[in-house]
Amino acid sequence: MTKPVMLTEPAFCPHSLNKYASLMTLGNGYMGIRASHEEAYTLQTRGMYLAGLYHRAGKGEINELVNLPDVVGVEIALNGEIFSLTSGVIERWHRELDFASGELRRTLVWRAPGGARFAIESRRFVSAQKLPLFAMEVAVTPLDGDASIGISTGIDATITNHGRQHLDETQVRVFGQHLLQGIYTTQDNRNDIAIATFCDVDGAAQRCFTAKERRLLQHNSVQAKTGQRVTLTKISWIDWASERSLSLETWARQSLRNLEACARQGYDALLAESTANWHAWWQSRRVQVTSNDMSDQRALDYALYHLRVMTPDHDERSSIAAKGLTGEGYKGHVFWDTEVFLLPFHLFTEPKTARSLLRYRWHNLSGAREKARRNGWQGALFPWESARSGEEETPEFAAINIRTGLRQKVASAQAEHHLVADIAWAVINYWHATGDMNFMSREGITLLLETAKFWISRAVMVNDRLEIHNVIGPDEYTEHVNNNAFTNYMAWYNVEQALGFARRLGFSDETFIHRAEHFLRHLWRPEALSDGVLPQDDTFLSKPVIDLSSYKAKAGKQTILLDYSRAEVNEMQILKQADVVMLTYMLPEQFNPQTCLANLRFYEPRTIHDSSLSKAIHGIVAARCGDSEQGYRFWREGSLIDLGDDPHSCDDGIHAAATGAIWLGAIQGFAGVNVRHGELHLAPALPDHWQTLSFPLCWQGVDMQVTINKAEIRISSTERITLWVNGEKIAVQGASAITYDGIITSIYGTATTKRDDE
Amino acid sequence: MTKPVMLTEPAFCPHSLNKYASLMTLGNGYMGIRASHEEAYTLQTRGMYLAGLYHRAGKGEINELVNLPDVVGVEIALNGEIFSLTSGVIERWHRELDFASGELRRTLVWRAPGGARFAIESRRFVSAQKLPLFAMEVAVTPLDGDASIGISTGIDATITNHGRQHLDETQVRVFGQHLLQGIYTTQDNRNDIAIATFCDVDGAAQRCFTAKERRLLQHNSVQAKTGQRVTLTKISWIDWASERSLSLETWARQSLRNLEACARQGYDALLAESTANWHAWWQSRRVQVTSNDMSDQRALDYALYHLRVMTPDHDERSSIAAKGLTGEGYKGHVFWDTEVFLLPFHLFTEPKTARSLLRYRWHNLSGAREKARRNGWQGALFPWESARSGEEETPEFAAINIRTGLRQKVASAQAEHHLVADIAWAVINYWHATGDMNFMSREGITLLLETAKFWISRAVMVNDRLEIHNVIGPDEYTEHVNNNAFTNYMAWYNVEQALGFARRLGFSDETFIHRAEHFLRHLWRPEALSDGVLPQDDTFLSKPVIDLSSYKAKAGKQTILLDYSRAEVNEMQILKQADVVMLTYMLPEQFNPQTCLANLRFYEPRTIHDSSLSKAIHGIVAARCGDSEQGYRFWREGSLIDLGDDPHSCDDGIHAAATGAIWLGAIQGFAGVNVRHGELHLAPALPDHWQTLSFPLCWQGVDMQVTINKAEIRISSTERITLWVNGEKIAVQGASAITYDGIITSIYGTATTKRDDE
Repeated sequence: MTKPVMLTEPAFCPHSLNKYASLMTLGNGYMGIRASHEEAYTLQTRGMYLAGLYHRAGKGEINELVNLPDVVGVEIALNGEIFSLTSGVIERWHRELDFASGELRRTLVWRAPGGARFAIESRRFVSAQKLPLFAMEVAVTPLDGDASIGISTGIDATITNHGRQHLDETQVRVFGQHLLQGIYTTQDNRNDIAIATFCDVDGAAQRCFTAKERRLLQHNSVQAKTGQRVTLTKISWIDWASERSLSLETWARQSLRNLEACARQGYDALLAESTANWHAWWQSRRVQVTSNDMSDQRALDYALYHLRVMTPDHDERSSIAAKGLTGEGYKGHVFWDTEVFLLPFHLFTEPKTARSLLRYRWHNLSGAREKARRNGWQGALFPWESARSGEEETPEFAAINIRTGLRQKVASAQAEHHLVADIAWAVINYWHATGDMNFMSREGITLLLETAKFWISRAVMVNDRLEIHNVIGPDEYTEHVNNNAFTNYMAWYNVEQALGFARRLGFSDETFIHRAEHFLRHLWRPEALSDGVLPQDDTFLSKPVIDLSSYKAKAGKQTILLDYSRAEVNEMQILKQADVVMLTYMLPEQFNPQTCLANLRFYEPRTIHDSSLSKAIHGIVAARCGDSEQGYRFWREGSLIDLGDDPHSCDDGIHAAATGAIWLGAIQGFAGVNVRHGELHLAPALPDHWQTLSFPLCWQGVDMQVTINKAEIRISSTERITLWVNGEKIAVQGASAITYDGIITSIYGTATTKRDDE
Repeated sequence: MTKPVMLTEPAFCPHSLNKYASLMTLGNGYMGIRASHEEAYTLQTRGMYLAGLYHRAGKGEINELVNLPDVVGVEIALNGEIFSLTSGVIERWHRELDFASGELRRTLVWRAPGGARFAIESRRFVSAQKLPLFAMEVAVTPLDGDASIGISTGIDATITNHGRQHLDETQVRVFGQHLLQGIYTTQDNRNDIAIATFCDVDGAAQRCFTAKERRLLQHNSVQAKTGQRVTLTKISWIDWASERSLSLETWARQSLRNLEACARQGYDALLAESTANWHAWWQSRRVQVTSNDMSDQRALDYALYHLRVMTPDHDERSSIAAKGLTGEGYKGHVFWDTEVFLLPFHLFTEPKTARSLLRYRWHNLSGAREKARRNGWQGALFPWESARSGEEETPEFAAINIRTGLRQKVASAQAEHHLVADIAWAVINYWHATGDMNFMSREGITLLLETAKFWISRAVMVNDRLEIHNVIGPDEYTEHVNNNAFTNYMAWYNVEQALGFARRLGFSDETFIHRAEHFLRHLWRPEALSDGVLPQDDTFLSKPVIDLSSYKAKAGKQTILLDYSRAEVNEMQILKQADVVMLTYMLPEQFNPQTCLANLRFYEPRTIHDSSLSKAIHGIVAARCGDSEQGYRFWREGSLIDLGDDPHSCDDGIHAAATGAIWLGAIQGFAGVNVRHGELHLAPALPDHWQTLSFPLCWQGVDMQVTINKAEIRISSTERITLWVNGEKIAVQGASAITYDGIITSIYGTATTKRDDE
């Protein structure tokens, strides 16, 4: 494996502060720390979040991911003037996030308005090895003369979620000359957060502490000689207890002891152990491409880096939010993005993590059952937006219409029910990829049955067929329709799989079996028309078509809503994102290539791609349909959703699903990995730009490495594994090469077609 | 009357942003709006406060003056770059607060980093005529070429009190093209605040609105030609309802109608009516000096300006906070500063306002009675820190000791009881100055009796005399002492005056009369020693003396506490502020000049003046003792507490009492105005620097104008008035001149000595 690349920020620009603060977020699944600069800027949003730490700030407010007191900020005074890049001149600049180690580094030379130059270097990382650990170093060197350097830092609890305060300040303390600790409690009294930080400035002549107005600070001043490098080392330990068994005091003291042990290790040793952890992680996950365009590899490394830092695999009571832990968009809530866009990466590289994500839903079944019951249905209706409790977090009303003063009901939580089948779909995928019967016989079957029961109760009999009315499919520009194809097919699949598992596990609830069979017999699944087009719903095809080119050119900006009301958009053939195309992606075995292509060709021109979830899926389906060039265009565009030129592409957090989609596009698109009837298929179709594509893949407990080039597919596996390559069933062990015309060569070990084998 | 002067900010300096934001606060007693700049700075604290609007933000928090959503902020983008004075070059700068009109103006020319220059002019005022009205104008002119100008402004509810959020966002609305309204509710649900704002940018080509993350904004963009002045007019109306009789909707609509009416009037007409109001106000209050130092007049105009804007004379449920409405220091709480330092100005210029301030205490008697009862005493023990309810707002514990983790009990609320007598003292002053028997027979006598009863219950009999134990006098560096002279004398005076009024009003509570007589007979009042020195308390004189010169050189900074613990300071002859000297100021008739001088000479060297309340009182006492030069030095130093060079002199709000003290120093010091046995005395002693001192004075309902120079004292009064001038009792009507050797000349009307008269 070559080393993962760097993400660099080309220049300091006040307009893109928050974009890069999101893109370069440090984290480890437990916590995420936005890459705000040490120095403050008026437009810069700082952020530190713990996965699963949600709180409601007041009446009428929404439960949201709590923005914690800040430890990143450092006020640097150089000869009495506060350092800020909005003044003076930046004479050198380099900032990079090293995906290999998770270290963020900045080095710059700054000419102060007074003329004297200073070198400012900083680096920081969130430990991959010790979840609560965050370490940083800031070094200041006067280049043109002796200088007085003031460095103030500590814990700043004036931070809010855009003005909403979640935390009471329970205690602030200073120990010795270097240790500061603040304990904060959510205002509902349910969570304590202990933030301890060790701060040391070498050569500090004067040091004092202040605790005022929610800021606990250490102030240092140094008289530095020309060329003298003055370094702040700051090591922080962020603990969270939602149900403490220890007294506050004991718990806080433990936290402090942990910090002290880290401080003794020092920045470099802590970084080394974290880098080693990252190295091992990349070994079994990195996707490598040889591409005409270097940025393709960057996109993949970026995606995988974030797929790690956003995922709380330490805690199955948490799942992945739509912005990961990089910002406050969507209030930090969990959507179907997790199961459909993010879980597959984990499933094919570290299935334990996928299991943990599914157990998150399982733990939260009671909220889902309650939501179904409250709406008159059975089984489990998972919340559209989910936080820690599993209750529906979608606000009943959307943001107020500032024109009418009226609040609009949020339709998604009411009708975007496909999420239920998407979770079941992920359970089935998990089963196929792992064969984990332990899970299936407990959590898996429960999730399948409860979701199936929901659909059975949800359908209505109309003219001798069961229909599903008043839903919203993935395409949110078409609301409250009957028989959305995506929903009906996924519901059918959900019930079918549940029934299959119920039988396999000897589940003897005859009523369920009978009702499921009845459902499967009678549920209407929209049929393809003669041209192969599957109607998106009962009325879609009868709506007028308009020219969407200008809106497609600004995909993601929802500019159509400037010209048309939502109600008007609803009455035209306009898709926000893949819907039928999404369905052909989800259930590849159910649609032949002609149908896939017909629907791609029909629906794509009608799709604005205003959702970040859209292009990647189109890219995969295009690649699967043999058009890997169109697939590549979509994949590229999808990979630029956050990484592109827009300085505000991801101010309030990256599009987490888009990182999953970058992986999906490469693996399920260009490598053609897919699962049909429970079996693994590979059908590579590299785009012209790519010469090789190499990635690890975990299937049924076996770790493979797959390397694809224009001539052949190489598969190496320590254990024997059976899979389909380009329609040919083969079994490999060791290293094998398969050419596109079906010739299999064993480099070492064995490789046989199933014909040979049987 | 000449026109009040300007306060100018000499240059833009990031370090003194908050000092000038406090000094130049706009207000009208109903609201105060800090003079933050339109553009944002990281260190700039914005603030808008309504007198009496307090709220507690969470458990363990203190009830505090709520910092309201901001309407001052304007983001100006010039050719896409956000305007900020930390970048580019300031080529011209002028900023001034016009005390005559209450208008704050800034004009500057800014060279953007790209090289193009822009003129930026802004002006604003809080209406003296319409309490909820705040108007501003911002004009941008590109000087060196056509430019695109973006102007975004509205209502920003992300504002907190240093991270503490008090308000829920109840509703945000936009009406038409110019009106925005946000309704906010304190989290305890008791107060609604409606902020409506009219925003218009002339020539705006594009205008849109956003409501996101507690910000309701109007965004304008203009393509401006070179030299084209693009002006934002923004008029805001800030309403507060604590017990609404109207529905929220009706109330909010009314608020909007008021704003619309103002918007129709326009900035200039609104300013004209406010300026007229200010003009009339200054007419009957302005103190004019001819001084060698121009800044003396500035200090006086500054003081009076703030004495107006801090005083909620529209609402007797509110009083004046220690920082007025200029910042969040002391959480916006009311102390004894109000009655002793601030009320006299009002009493001698607009007694109705003094009455309103006393009625604030009267309304809050139940909290004071409750506090006394809870502590085992009778009568009324007013809270040391007071907000709207009249309950004790002093936190039980002070800020945590960050070293020990322990919280220290706040001693002031437990023992700084002289406040009770100070309030009674103010009641008696009010009576003397107004003869308002209506007030005295109801509120006045109640306040006197309740405070007297407190003292009677508070004293303990020791060896046949009543003593008052365990108090803190005004000198807070000497805690928990017995028989603090200030306290005992003031308590005696309190009871004596209460008894006198009880008798005069035929009050027949024999028990009280008997107990009061007993108290007056037996209360120990420390006696002057042979050298005239009055012991500050039972033990003070036995404590060691140390050299305080280095601490006195840094008066106000409390540097002594860096070298000594509070407990150690307590055991030395160290005063934070005037104590016995303060007593001679408070009760001038009880101490002969020799005693005053002896105590000034003894105590001043032992006083660090770490309280802003100290120097002014020393100045007055020095002037009264005939040393007007020392008096002038103290007065000058006192006047520089906020106006001096320290860039952080008043970041969290001005020292309100110090503004009162500037007036007191001039009027009670150099003009020698004082009241003895209920009669008005004048004994001028102008410092060498001053040639004339002229001021209006209201006494017993008669408005006088007094003008003092080195040769004579001129008094003009439309009605006949009796007073003592330099020890001579005279009666004047019309305009009279009195020389320092007692020759009285009537310029018109009559002037007689009482001897002639009788």
